[in-house]
Amino acid sequence: MNDNRFTELIGKEYKCLDKGFVRLLDVMGDDSSIVQAARVSYGKGTKSVSEDRGLIRYLMRHRHTSPFEMVEFKFHVKLPIFVARQWIRHRTANVNEYSGRYSEMKEECYLPETNAIRAQSMTNKQARSDEQIDAEETAKIIGMLGDTQFRLFREYDEMLNKNVAREIARINLPLSTYTEWYWKIDLHNLFHFLKLRLDEHAQYEIRVYAEVMSDIIRQIVPITYEAFDDFVLNSQTFSKSELKALKAMCQGGIPDDTKLEEFGIKGGERTEFKLKMRSFLED
Amino acid sequence: MNDNRFTELIGKEYKCLDKGFVRLLDVMGDDSSIVQAARVSYGKGTKSVSEDRGLIRYLMRHRHTSPFEMVEFKFHVKLPIFVARQWIRHRTANVNEYSGRYSEMKEECYLPETNAIRAQSMTNKQARSDEQIDAEETAKIIGMLGDTQFRLFREYDEMLNKNVAREIARINLPLSTYTEWYWKIDLHNLFHFLKLRLDEHAQYEIRVYAEVMSDIIRQIVPITYEAFDDFVLNSQTFSKSELKALKAMCQGGIPDDTKLEEFGIKGGERTEFKLKMRSFLED
Amino acid sequence: MNDNRFTELIGKEYKCLDKGFVRLLDVMGDDSSIVQAARVSYGKGTKSVSEDRGLIRYLMRHRHTSPFEMVEFKFHVKLPIFVARQWIRHRTANVNEYSGRYSEMKEECYLPETNAIRAQSMTNKQARSDEQIDAEETAKIIGMLGDTQFRLFREYDEMLNKNVAREIARINLPLSTYTEWYWKIDLHNLFHFLKLRLDEHAQYEIRVYAEVMSDIIRQIVPITYEAFDDFVLNSQTFSKSELKALKAMCQGGIPDDTKLEEFGIKGGERTEFKLKMRSFLED
Amino acid sequence: MNDNRFTELIGKEYKCLDKGFVRLLDVMGDDSSIVQAARVSYGKGTKSVSEDRGLIRYLMRHRHTSPFEMVEFKFHVKLPIFVARQWIRHRTANVNEYSGRYSEMKEECYLPETNAIRAQSMTNKQARSDEQIDAEETAKIIGMLGDTQFRLFREYDEMLNKNVAREIARINLPLSTYTEWYWKIDLHNLFHFLKLRLDEHAQYEIRVYAEVMSDIIRQIVPITYEAFDDFVLNSQTFSKSELKALKAMCQGGIPDDTKLEEFGIKGGERTEFKLKMRSFLED
Repeated sequence: MNDNRFTELIGKEYKCLDKGFVRLLDVMGDDSSIVQAARVSYGKGTKSVSEDRGLIRYLMRHRHTSPFEMVEFKFHVKLPIFVARQWIRHRTANVNEYSGRYSEMKEECYLPETNAIRAQSMTNKQARSDEQIDAEETAKIIGMLGDTQFRLFREYDEMLNKNVAREIARINLPLSTYTEWYWKIDLHNLFHFLKLRLDEHAQYEIRVYAEVMSDIIRQIVPITYEAFDDFVLNSQTFSKSELKALKAMCQGGIPDDTKLEEFGIKGGERTEFKLKMRSFLED
Repeated sequence: MNDNRFTELIGKEYKCLDKGFVRLLDVMGDDSSIVQAARVSYGKGTKSVSEDRGLIRYLMRHRHTSPFEMVEFKFHVKLPIFVARQWIRHRTANVNEYSGRYSEMKEECYLPETNAIRAQSMTNKQARSDEQIDAEETAKIIGMLGDTQFRLFREYDEMLNKNVAREIARINLPLSTYTEWYWKIDLHNLFHFLKLRLDEHAQYEIRVYAEVMSDIIRQIVPITYEAFDDFVLNSQTFSKSELKALKAMCQGGIPDDTKLEEFGIKGGERTEFKLKMRSFLED
Repeated sequence: MNDNRFTELIGKEYKCLDKGFVRLLDVMGDDSSIVQAARVSYGKGTKSVSEDRGLIRYLMRHRHTSPFEMVEFKFHVKLPIFVARQWIRHRTANVNEYSGRYSEMKEECYLPETNAIRAQSMTNKQARSDEQIDAEETAKIIGMLGDTQFRLFREYDEMLNKNVAREIARINLPLSTYTEWYWKIDLHNLFHFLKLRLDEHAQYEIRVYAEVMSDIIRQIVPITYEAFDDFVLNSQTFSKSELKALKAMCQGGIPDDTKLEEFGIKGGERTEFKLKMRSFLED
Repeated sequence: MNDNRFTELIGKEYKCLDKGFVRLLDVMGDDSSIVQAARVSYGKGTKSVSEDRGLIRYLMRHRHTSPFEMVEFKFHVKLPIFVARQWIRHRTANVNEYSGRYSEMKEECYLPETNAIRAQSMTNKQARSDEQIDAEETAKIIGMLGDTQFRLFREYDEMLNKNVAREIARINLPLSTYTEWYWKIDLHNLFHFLKLRLDEHAQYEIRVYAEVMSDIIRQIVPITYEAFDDFVLNSQTFSKSELKALKAMCQGGIPDDTKLEEFGIKGGERTEFKLKMRSFLED
């Protein structure tokens, strides 16, 4: 409400893949809304900006997630159907999608760039590898994909011309066909989406969207995004057994405070780090 | 975003019960956002206002609910704990509540007005009746409730003074104690809340809040609220058997009991049917 | 648990469309679990079977939905992707789907029967009509759909043979390709699914699945299903304005257009109202 | 279904606090259901038990959570209202609670043991400390709590005797009053509940319930529970900055395979651990 700071972000079309996009349509709240909501729980009044940053980082570190639910984003996204199928698995969002029953599907399909045509990974059963397919083969494959997409839409047109119901005529359209939707989600659940979809194991074609959305929201909730980046995105979790191995590896003891400060660990975060280290070193 | 129309509504404290309130903190979207979201599905461009109204009413009538999820409200509410316990059963909302573990509970309890002290209903096991308790008795009861609330907070203070942990000291505080929360919900789920909590069978103390919220959102989504009022709030649903009876009725009065039994309407179902029919025949 | 009554239902494959199926894998609870859960709320002991039926019908009639959430079903479903895309919009369920990233897609596509190839409806923008397409044309269309499905899988094979990653090779597979999933849902949410997907406006291909599931669960919760059938599936809801007209009707036939307009029923709403009234008057 | 292994667990009342309990009412699925659901996604057939264990641990480690949603538990719980208020914040569960509007509240309140009366923590604003209050004071406090609970129920009785509606008469009952509910949840969401409520920062009175539930489900899904214990409950997560500090502390390099095996790190878990360590040591 009444917020003109993000005017230049709203409605702007950020290109994704060859024909897709992400547009931020609306936003409710910012860093300060999170602080405000947390302070309802703690019964404290407003404080300085540096205390706000500390509070946000504390909430993120301790997975006190409900204040992050108080910020809401609405996006307009254009994306291939096979990406939409992965995306929709995130259930805690509101969606309105273009309907192939109501409306004619537009002739727009995702055609991968040369660089996206990769060999199956040997080590990761669900992913492509870094290995390129032979350049000539790649060109042939892209040609074949494009020709097929063109032909499938000719068959679609033919059926529509014969007055076949849209809901039937579309059944052979390819998973590469673009669809569009409005997608509304709160920041906590968006972070969960981003954590999974920014991951290197996510399919490249959905990661592209996650990266764009991450760039957009970073500008709206900079302090919270930084905390997410530090405590979630770039964190590592060690299991019970791994902590034993880690303990064996740690010959040097906990670095002194000056050293810790160089790493960006200070204040309450330092206290907690020391407690965390002592708990597994002395276990 | 960028919306100054509702400035006078935002933050305004609407009194509820003796010490509670509802404040609208923020809103995302309005009638036009619903139309816009629906048109993503239907693949149509924007149209005239009268067509917008028609579309909204069509969506409501046919329970096409997802476009209503595209509007979001954030409220600040102060309410007695026994009301909060009914309210929280609506799961599709985001909540940050004041914590009696972090912070001292404020000495504020709900003390019913004379008019709210009613006899147990004989026909409805979950409700109070219209029957007032004897005036003198009512005064005594209110006096007793108030005295007890005062005494319970003295015991609470005494425990805090002895440094008993807040999370233990509060266990004997009464269900009438006020709490506060931020509550964020989309319009579709808010309508579901309102339908249940505006109902005459809802407890009076939560209905008061539902009425205030309904007055607030009616100003923000007037066309959609009108459709909700027509097609949901003030609608009647007739079962398979009732529809048979209704048909017969259209040639005469309410069928006699033998006839109703032929339609499969008997026992409690018959009683309810007659009430329902009389209510619209004699309206 | 410990329940052998439904042994013959569990695991049985119920055919849907040309190559799909529904299999009930597991169930938690039955009619009596609903009664038991409701009685926790009402604090009453167990009663006779006829009282159980009365209670279940009361709960259904008054939309006291939480006891119905206490029964849970797990299904194994094989379905075309375009059906899966409609199905997945029901968010309050648990899903494990076959992955085209992990595993090779099986060459199985939905090929409609002659009877399913229909003309676009003129009155309902999202549906097919009852009108058949010319028989010769229909045969040609089915032939074309089948040929294309065959060819698309040849191209898929070719890419896999060239070691293109599965997640890329599958992007041109058609929406008619079959997928499989485990789908777990509680009875309340399953009823919501069935209400929408048994509706004549639901696409035929998903309605087939809804009908099979409805036949299965009717055997497990017969009393509850009957209540659902009476009070939800075959009910009619009349709006505020329609109720006024209904009242007038009970002294005569359907009011004329001028009269209806007085009640606020006009345009599309009037058309629908007349259809609704005729449907029960002429039933 | 058809499962007699857990007969002795079903319905058994596990005492919690002074008058509460947890009873497992029903369960759908076990370790093998998780494996089965995961294999739908991966398109693989059934394998040996040791491979099943490996798969479950892989799923847990990589937060592939959907197969864990395929197991469902239904509990009957008796708990003080202030515990119920924390518990209900877990939204992805089904609940039927005893109603103080329908039924008279039973005179049962939580009266803490001597050991539970502790001083407010100085370091943790939301918790009690380890410090006992003076023994004599503690006895007085417990006496006062008990007397007050008795008196509040006398006032409740008095109002009921005067025919005050139950929904009003109960407003001054204390938060320590016991309530009961049926609570149904899937294993993934139950793990989330347990992680938060087994934590040392959870209030003691809810932790007691989490511990009992954790003991029950450990017997039903032993392999999955062990994985939860290793990879979630007893894991530590290090932030971006903390990983830098950890790197400085690690002088010794990664322990050799024999050493790692002593810590219980072998097979795929060893490969992943080495990758994890290299990624931060070489960063």
